[in-house]
Amino acid sequence: MDDLRIGQTAQSSKRITDVDLALFAAVTGDFNPAHFDPVYAAGTHFKEPIAHGIIPVGLISAVMAMKLPGPGTVFIQQTANFLAPVKVGDVITASVEIIELLEKRRIRLRTKCVNQQGVTVLEGEALVSVPKKG
Amino acid sequence: MDDLRIGQTAQSSKRITDVDLALFAAVTGDFNPAHFDPVYAAGTHFKEPIAHGIIPVGLISAVMAMKLPGPGTVFIQQTANFLAPVKVGDVITASVEIIELLEKRRIRLRTKCVNQQGVTVLEGEALVSVPKKG
Repeated sequence: MDDLRIGQTAQSSKRITDVDLALFAAVTGDFNPAHFDPVYAAGTHFKEPIAHGIIPVGLISAVMAMKLPGPGTVFIQQTANFLAPVKVGDVITASVEIIELLEKRRIRLRTKCVNQQGVTVLEGEALVSVPKKG
Repeated sequence: MDDLRIGQTAQSSKRITDVDLALFAAVTGDFNPAHFDPVYAAGTHFKEPIAHGIIPVGLISAVMAMKLPGPGTVFIQQTANFLAPVKVGDVITASVEIIELLEKRRIRLRTKCVNQQGVTVLEGEALVSVPKKG
C-alpha cells in the first residue's frame, strides 16, 4: 500500500488553551463544569478544571489526517483510554504508529498522547482507510 | 449509585454546520481536505466534504456531561465505530444508554449517533466515572 510500513510513526504537539476548551464546547455543547467552573472543580478529584477528553482524541485525528497516513484519511474505528487529566497550559504530543497493514487499503495504528512531563494521558488504537495517492 | 439504573437513556440533537468544522479544525489542527476541499472531496468515495469523525464523538460526550450521568462526568474509556459519513447540514442525534453499573462509581453506556434519515453514523461504548451528588 503505497510506501506505508509497520513501525512508521508521526507526531505533533500543541499547547491546550482556554480558547480550545471554549471552541470545543461551542461545537459540541459540552459545558461540563469540570472543564469551566474552578469552584466546582476544586471539589473534584482533580482539584482544578481539566480539558475535555475528546480534545486529545482530536489531536490524534489531526496527526493521521495531516501526516500519517495523510490527507484524505477516513476513520473507521477508534478506541481511547483516558489515563490522566489534561489541564489548560499543558503541551500535548499526539503520536501514531502503524501496527498492522490490512486489506482494502486499511491500516491499524497505535495512538498516544503524552504531556510535557512525559505522562501518558491517552492511549488507544485507530483503524483507518488510506487515501489513494492523487 | 444515586438513582442510576440500567436502561436509562438520554439524547440531544444538533445540526452540523460549516462553523463546527472550522472551530474543530482550529482546536485540533485537523484541516484534512476531506472536510474542507470540495474539489478534493469530489474525487473521494463520499463525493462531497464530510465532517470530522470526532465531532459526533464530542456530541456523545456532551450528552453524558450535560444529561446522563450529568455534570462532573469523567471519561475513562471510549470506543467508536464510524459507520456512515456526517455531512454539513445533517441533524445528528447523539444518545446514550446505561448498560452496566460497576464498582467505584463507574458505569458503562452504549453510545450512538443517528442522522435525520435514521442512519446510524456512529456507535460505540463509553466507560465513565459518575460525579458525587453535590
